[in-house]
Amino acid sequence: MNIFWQEFPALTESLEEVSAIIQDVCASRNPIINEGVSTLFDGKGKLLRPGILLIAAHFGKKRDKHLKLAACLEMLHMATLVHDDVIDDSPMRRGAPAAHVRFGKRDAVLIGDYLLSRCFLLAAEYTSPENAVNLGKALSRMCVMEIEQNADRFSSDMNLRRYLKKIMGKSAILFSLACHVGSCEAKAPKHVTERLRRAGYNIGMAFQIIDDILDYSGDVGAVGKPLGCDIKEGFVTLPLICAVRRDASGVLRSFFSDPTFTADDPNAIIKLVCENGGVEAARSFAETYTNRAMREIARLPNGAARDMLGKLTLKLLGRDR
Amino acid sequence: MNIFWQEFPALTESLEEVSAIIQDVCASRNPIINEGVSTLFDGKGKLLRPGILLIAAHFGKKRDKHLKLAACLEMLHMATLVHDDVIDDSPMRRGAPAAHVRFGKRDAVLIGDYLLSRCFLLAAEYTSPENAVNLGKALSRMCVMEIEQNADRFSSDMNLRRYLKKIMGKSAILFSLACHVGSCEAKAPKHVTERLRRAGYNIGMAFQIIDDILDYSGDVGAVGKPLGCDIKEGFVTLPLICAVRRDASGVLRSFFSDPTFTADDPNAIIKLVCENGGVEAARSFAETYTNRAMREIARLPNGAARDMLGKLTLKLLGRDR
Repeated sequence: MNIFWQEFPALTESLEEVSAIIQDVCASRNPIINEGVSTLFDGKGKLLRPGILLIAAHFGKKRDKHLKLAACLEMLHMATLVHDDVIDDSPMRRGAPAAHVRFGKRDAVLIGDYLLSRCFLLAAEYTSPENAVNLGKALSRMCVMEIEQNADRFSSDMNLRRYLKKIMGKSAILFSLACHVGSCEAKAPKHVTERLRRAGYNIGMAFQIIDDILDYSGDVGAVGKPLGCDIKEGFVTLPLICAVRRDASGVLRSFFSDPTFTADDPNAIIKLVCENGGVEAARSFAETYTNRAMREIARLPNGAARDMLGKLTLKLLGRDR
Repeated sequence: MNIFWQEFPALTESLEEVSAIIQDVCASRNPIINEGVSTLFDGKGKLLRPGILLIAAHFGKKRDKHLKLAACLEMLHMATLVHDDVIDDSPMRRGAPAAHVRFGKRDAVLIGDYLLSRCFLLAAEYTSPENAVNLGKALSRMCVMEIEQNADRFSSDMNLRRYLKKIMGKSAILFSLACHVGSCEAKAPKHVTERLRRAGYNIGMAFQIIDDILDYSGDVGAVGKPLGCDIKEGFVTLPLICAVRRDASGVLRSFFSDPTFTADDPNAIIKLVCENGGVEAARSFAETYTNRAMREIARLPNGAARDMLGKLTLKLLGRDR
């Protein structure tokens, strides 16, 4: 079992079942699909969204479909990552070559489509129609936000409000969905599913902000990809937004204003962002979202599930990969 | 209404409803999504698969969900076309610039994903779970066949059997599905839905063979893209397979055997394929599949739906675009 969940023994077995479901649903006679799927679901992924869904399911009593729903969520997530890596031309994913590097862009797009087809097939077959619709809606929203993000590359209009809206739609949504559909499918009471949805949203916002911080200050070996990938692609994230406000020299602002600026060497920008306190400022945003999540969690029904969700939320704030 | 269906007045109104459903389901506040969707569903498309599904639904009595299912099928089809054009770097689609040319590859991949999300959302919300599963399975199969097709580019192993398997999985499947799910959703008797499935398969095979012939001998203005696109991409289709067998000079075989051969100028190959009777031979395959379809159709219950399906099948054999 992957190391991330070792402090959560109650989930270990279920997460292994989720992995087995994914392998089973995605099995194909085609060797490229099979290799692609085994590489993507190689046991090194954190299975964070399925894990959160399983915890959320503990707040209800009816637990039969939640493993399949957790598998759907991970497949949806992986499909979007495969397509993101093609789109962004990212060479690495979790320390290994990205799918499009191994298989070429043609096959990577198709492997992503294949994962979506298996995700929706599984959802249609085993989960409630409402939750299959929720998966479709989440993917729609993620696509729209990615398109907005593309329009905002190297953009001087990027500000805190747009940034927060964007990470909600492209990232926090799956955490919120995991909490919501997991507890809905398990027939938890409405006030609990709604509170879980809000907790998931805040966990996801903190998660994405930390992800964006890692592009500026992560341990390259642990993160599994070089620093500055977002900068190279022109994505303006929270550490940069925070640092620009504090940068008296005005150099960082050129990142926004010069349309020909491509940042092939991002180190100068990383240095300036760090010197101007961009990373610390972003981290305090992540703490704010974590605190909001903890407040929601504190008001959930007492028990092992609540303890797990709280422990996980704090663990994510401290993650270094 | 589009010109293709003008001889089928019984379908006109329903097809307009299908278009309206697609526009409605795909509507977004994002301008790029909206422009992409309006361009893709601009009323110039034939809506062939939805049309066939509507005809198939006439063989049953319960007709309430078939319009939404027809919309799903067209959205699935368009999503795969958008991704295909990105993958193949095809500049044109139906006489207009392809989505990736208008919006860039990043957004084209995402527009395709968005269409898939709306397709599965609509299927989960309104059609039977069995038919939502069927849509997922069809997409899986199409992805696998596209990956096999990529592996077969410029391949000397390409032969008739592999070619037929490939066009079944990447193209005929949606015609077969249209016939099958349309009649199943309308609660037609099992022997009718099975016969329709087979008719759809044969119609789809003939359709794709004619599509492949048009790459060698189409009217460029009518088809909406230049000749030789498949050749440039290294796709070995039926006219070439047939012509190689007859080409005494052995020149055509070099297309298979030389891995560095890229066919930047496909005209010499087109000329040789035509001179060696590749187009006529491929056309006789299309006629065989059309005849098989007509035999299945002849054994369907008598009536207006049977007449429409027969008329459509013969019309497709004679198409020039």
